[in-house]
Amino acid sequence: MPKKQKMTDSKKKLTTLKELGEFGLIDKLTKDIKLKHPSTIKGVGDDAAVLDYSGKQQVVTTDLLVEGIHFDLMYTPLKHLGYKAVVVNLSDVFAMNATPKQITVSLALSGKFSLEAVEQLYEGIYKACEHYQVDLIGGDTTSSVTGLCISITALGEIEKGKAVYRNTAKSGDLICVSGDLGAAYAGLQILKREKEVFLVNPSSQPDMSGYDYVLERQLKPEARKDIFESLQKAGVIPTAMIDISDGLSSEILHICKQSGCGAKIMEGNLPIDVQTIQVAEELNMDPTLLAMNGGEDYELLFTVNPNDAERLYEVEGISVIGEILPKEQEVRLFGRGEGSTMIQAQGWNAYPEK
Amino acid sequence: MPKKQKMTDSKKKLTTLKELGEFGLIDKLTKDIKLKHPSTIKGVGDDAAVLDYSGKQQVVTTDLLVEGIHFDLMYTPLKHLGYKAVVVNLSDVFAMNATPKQITVSLALSGKFSLEAVEQLYEGIYKACEHYQVDLIGGDTTSSVTGLCISITALGEIEKGKAVYRNTAKSGDLICVSGDLGAAYAGLQILKREKEVFLVNPSSQPDMSGYDYVLERQLKPEARKDIFESLQKAGVIPTAMIDISDGLSSEILHICKQSGCGAKIMEGNLPIDVQTIQVAEELNMDPTLLAMNGGEDYELLFTVNPNDAERLYEVEGISVIGEILPKEQEVRLFGRGEGSTMIQAQGWNAYPEK
Repeated sequence: MPKKQKMTDSKKKLTTLKELGEFGLIDKLTKDIKLKHPSTIKGVGDDAAVLDYSGKQQVVTTDLLVEGIHFDLMYTPLKHLGYKAVVVNLSDVFAMNATPKQITVSLALSGKFSLEAVEQLYEGIYKACEHYQVDLIGGDTTSSVTGLCISITALGEIEKGKAVYRNTAKSGDLICVSGDLGAAYAGLQILKREKEVFLVNPSSQPDMSGYDYVLERQLKPEARKDIFESLQKAGVIPTAMIDISDGLSSEILHICKQSGCGAKIMEGNLPIDVQTIQVAEELNMDPTLLAMNGGEDYELLFTVNPNDAERLYEVEGISVIGEILPKEQEVRLFGRGEGSTMIQAQGWNAYPEK
Repeated sequence: MPKKQKMTDSKKKLTTLKELGEFGLIDKLTKDIKLKHPSTIKGVGDDAAVLDYSGKQQVVTTDLLVEGIHFDLMYTPLKHLGYKAVVVNLSDVFAMNATPKQITVSLALSGKFSLEAVEQLYEGIYKACEHYQVDLIGGDTTSSVTGLCISITALGEIEKGKAVYRNTAKSGDLICVSGDLGAAYAGLQILKREKEVFLVNPSSQPDMSGYDYVLERQLKPEARKDIFESLQKAGVIPTAMIDISDGLSSEILHICKQSGCGAKIMEGNLPIDVQTIQVAEELNMDPTLLAMNGGEDYELLFTVNPNDAERLYEVEGISVIGEILPKEQEVRLFGRGEGSTMIQAQGWNAYPEK
């Protein structure tokens, strides 16, 4: 790491997209699609896909990933990028309490990408489709002036009236989170550090041993289908739910703002992996800050009626990290000592000036 | 023309996106949304939108527009761009014989865009939503390293089994096209010419008089909702249909390839506006070439069973331009004289080498 991508590998002759053309490229990328769902009536190959969700409701979500903003191809293998681009959308579908069924994939590609590079990206996309059992039903493939842009829309199925929103948390509800927090951000810091080392001394061999978990969390995250299923099995319907893409701080504020309530988060209950803590120490960062504001965790943050507390214990891999409070009490993080601080919104705020 | 965009207007203080942040921007842009359709259960503001198409089938289509590839902000007013970005998607929905109901809009914006610039873009988006009666139900707003990228997904409703595909044309069917062809491309050539003049002499005043029709076709196209409705009213169900985004040549080849048939297109029957012909003459181009390969017309190309010919005459604004033939006869353009030429696929083929 930073590994050379195949796209810049000059050992074998690569196929330029120019040779193929738009339609050739689309044919190549979509010829092996086998549709999985009866709700997919018609997939790739027409002006639009045709779906039939008869009797069910549907959720729709979309995400746009931009090279240089959301990913750096110097340390992001294209296959992982394709996988992750799908996962971030499916995570939103699970956060609605819905089952993902279809995706569309649009790509803007500059001339630096060969067919082989795009095929790697699609390998990851198809791998995610297989793992999460979703149909790729359409998209758009176009050129770009610089870099790569990936836009994915995911569609999912849900029984009428069963969607779980952000604005329905109630005072007294338990606040729960799946998995652990901050690892993806820790992984990103390691990748950035090794990139700097490499840029200064290109003959250096990056040493990634001991960082496997945080790197995987950054490069190949999973959506929490398992938690979604465990909650269903245990008969727990969250009162409100959101996925953690921008960071816990940002997401708990979304829930509280939209539900019109306050919240208490207990710092001591935040689930943080031991490797995340090690990386935080190494980089002289506060692990709590990573957990609260790191982002890209793709865990589920949800609230549960206290009457469901018993059933909640059947669900593995979740932590109760706090409680929803009346609005007047604000949204606060209670430290391990006595003090508490108000939780601030983060989200991104970087618009490069070009 | 080229008019200065508001985004570079320094007379009044503009609001940077950095000041607003992601959530501030989204709030600003979506606060006035009023949902129009009962099928939209939940729009903007959660991890995903929730829809209910109970009993109906659904079509899904998506398009990605990239600055420097699909539009040049030097001569594309942002409001028109927003309108067009929606229209190109709705055109695909109509081409399935479906009624558009919802769209999602994702934007990647570089720091050169002010809030006011993005608001202009959204003004066009909302204008199209109003005109075509669709709900904006979600999206993603992010930054980009350079330029603007717009990804729109459109969803539409259709009675079970009524979708009209590309692969169902039959030998003997009449080939029809709505409106006229080549004007959008002619308009683009005029805009490009005036841009060159402006770049050489920035004090020159572009003279656009006499080009109003072709410019409007390029800058503010409409999707043929009227034709879709007229066909329904006349009781004509096309046997196959596609919208003309890449050019008539490309689209008729799609229909023929997917339907396994040939076709005869009569050059003399191609609908070309008089202004398109004038521009073609001025630029020393063949009007037929513009009509066949210009693209961006967003007209409907469809085939009709000859038994429906009578009913077809009730529909205003369409031209019968040829006939579907058995596969062996290839796809050919018959000139005004005796000769005929094979129609070649075009589509885009430009991957800039960056």
